[in-house]
Amino acid sequence: MAVSVEQARDLAMAAGLAVKGSTSPNPPVGAVILDRADRLVGRGATQPVGGAHAEVMALQEAGAAARGGTAVVTLEPCAHVGRTGACTLALLRAGIARVLYVHADPNPVAAGGARILAQAGVEVRQIPAGTGKDALDPWLRATKLQRPCVTLKVAQTLDGFSAALDGTSQWITSPQSREHAHLDRQGRDALMVGTGTVLADNPRLSARRPDGSLLPQQPRRVVVGSRPVEQMGAAAAHLQQAGFEQYATPQQALVQLWESGARDVLVEGGPGLAGSLLQAGLVDYLHVYIAPLVLGQGRSVSATAVGPSLADAARFQRRALRELGPDIMVELSALAPEG
Amino acid sequence: MAVSVEQARDLAMAAGLAVKGSTSPNPPVGAVILDRADRLVGRGATQPVGGAHAEVMALQEAGAAARGGTAVVTLEPCAHVGRTGACTLALLRAGIARVLYVHADPNPVAAGGARILAQAGVEVRQIPAGTGKDALDPWLRATKLQRPCVTLKVAQTLDGFSAALDGTSQWITSPQSREHAHLDRQGRDALMVGTGTVLADNPRLSARRPDGSLLPQQPRRVVVGSRPVEQMGAAAAHLQQAGFEQYATPQQALVQLWESGARDVLVEGGPGLAGSLLQAGLVDYLHVYIAPLVLGQGRSVSATAVGPSLADAARFQRRALRELGPDIMVELSALAPEG
Repeated sequence: MAVSVEQARDLAMAAGLAVKGSTSPNPPVGAVILDRADRLVGRGATQPVGGAHAEVMALQEAGAAARGGTAVVTLEPCAHVGRTGACTLALLRAGIARVLYVHADPNPVAAGGARILAQAGVEVRQIPAGTGKDALDPWLRATKLQRPCVTLKVAQTLDGFSAALDGTSQWITSPQSREHAHLDRQGRDALMVGTGTVLADNPRLSARRPDGSLLPQQPRRVVVGSRPVEQMGAAAAHLQQAGFEQYATPQQALVQLWESGARDVLVEGGPGLAGSLLQAGLVDYLHVYIAPLVLGQGRSVSATAVGPSLADAARFQRRALRELGPDIMVELSALAPEG
Repeated sequence: MAVSVEQARDLAMAAGLAVKGSTSPNPPVGAVILDRADRLVGRGATQPVGGAHAEVMALQEAGAAARGGTAVVTLEPCAHVGRTGACTLALLRAGIARVLYVHADPNPVAAGGARILAQAGVEVRQIPAGTGKDALDPWLRATKLQRPCVTLKVAQTLDGFSAALDGTSQWITSPQSREHAHLDRQGRDALMVGTGTVLADNPRLSARRPDGSLLPQQPRRVVVGSRPVEQMGAAAAHLQQAGFEQYATPQQALVQLWESGARDVLVEGGPGLAGSLLQAGLVDYLHVYIAPLVLGQGRSVSATAVGPSLADAARFQRRALRELGPDIMVELSALAPEG
């Protein structure tokens, strides 16, 4: 049965989303191969680093049926020869007649694939993204900014407190919210907290199932702040046992993470680190888990003001809104400051 | 065409919701009359105070077709003779053979209608409420508590601030949220704020359209606090011109409002009044309008803590979640304290 371009695009997007674990520094691309009659003959996604790219995976499945067919890819095929050879060459060798891609490659080292394909006589066209979730978002943003994409996760009461006045905070949010947050940790390149959170919570910084067992993919454990975690004794026993990286400032951490291949970082507090990131305009995505509680007064999510006036507020745009048991969860992306 | 009990129930519920303006102290009931063949022959809702009750309105539309038929009512028909005569008698006179009602009447003065109807040979049965919005909620809660039902409305940033550190607050929420909030004012018995809000905002406490014109129904304007609004000069010019009621404490205000017939009160701040109501457990419903802004620090929605610890938090249950342009809006109802 023939598949429409939109159907093929959605299948390729879904393949990108289905990638298990991080592909960083490579992008989590999805690809679909259609034969001459537009029938689906191959589907693939980027494998974890060092493994094959999406196009190669999909072409492998398609075999000879790819000749004269169409490749629908979520990202412009790369043109450089990195760890796995250029996807552009693989598409030409397989005799693909038409390449449709969603995002142009913003990476100057890998861009140009579309031009090379066109010069070789392949019909190349960029197609619009759908409205669904896009696995490439963090990678595209990171590549544009030349630093890891930062998602700040916050768990709070309706009135914005992440702990009561006496410091109690377990558990503000529901088991459903906590399970969702753990699944979100999986596949991130790094999980980052401040030294205050280490001292207060002795966190594991691991992605776990509700029964406490570890999920298959685990992020790097990163601590930001000048107090050495090694000297915190039993208060930081879990991290000391599991191993961690520590940096003095969030900026320093992001440089080191970028250079060591991380593209997608999840920050889970506390108020000192959240405030620093918000003030510096370093929060790309914001995930707010809101429990149906009101404390009136308590410990705010951020220790510092973004600015004194309403005009200084950090502005975001809603991407998703979900109900998690009694809680709600809002996903937002940063808007550029008003000019 | 015959109508099912559920369809008739939903039509009666919708009639109650469609009541324009307040029926207080009477409940906003909806009623539907089906003839012997279960065909819809009448529909009605409580008229503003002094006017007819829902059953009477629906019976009037049905005329002789009501004889031997069914009345489906959102509230047990009243048995006392108040301003308009008892609905129970009206149903008997019209020859209704079967009465189905959703809520039992919690009002001891008016209860007993079901028993009287059954004694007169009418088949009487309570039927389950649907899952939709119920116009009787505030009235039922007020009657149970013997004080007006209190809805606290809050407009805030994602991190729970209703103003920045320098006091700027216009506008945190979107035009869509403000329009929604104005429509919600309409039909309330009273709109309540603290003296601090009067001084800060010179509010009109009126229900307006986006163009500034007044909506047809206007709530009573109520101020709580000890500073006399009369002595605030130009800072409170709008209220001084439009007229208002002032009470020293929220408790005093609620007693006076109850005794003068109000059942459904909307509180719109500020932090002093919100804190007093939350601490006293007087918030029945909470409407939170959340704008996609983060201030980090600012002026909280409540000036006081409900308690020092997480266990002291006021607990709510989500009733509705909506998107209003860039904002979200959560409607919640109070849960009884744990323990």
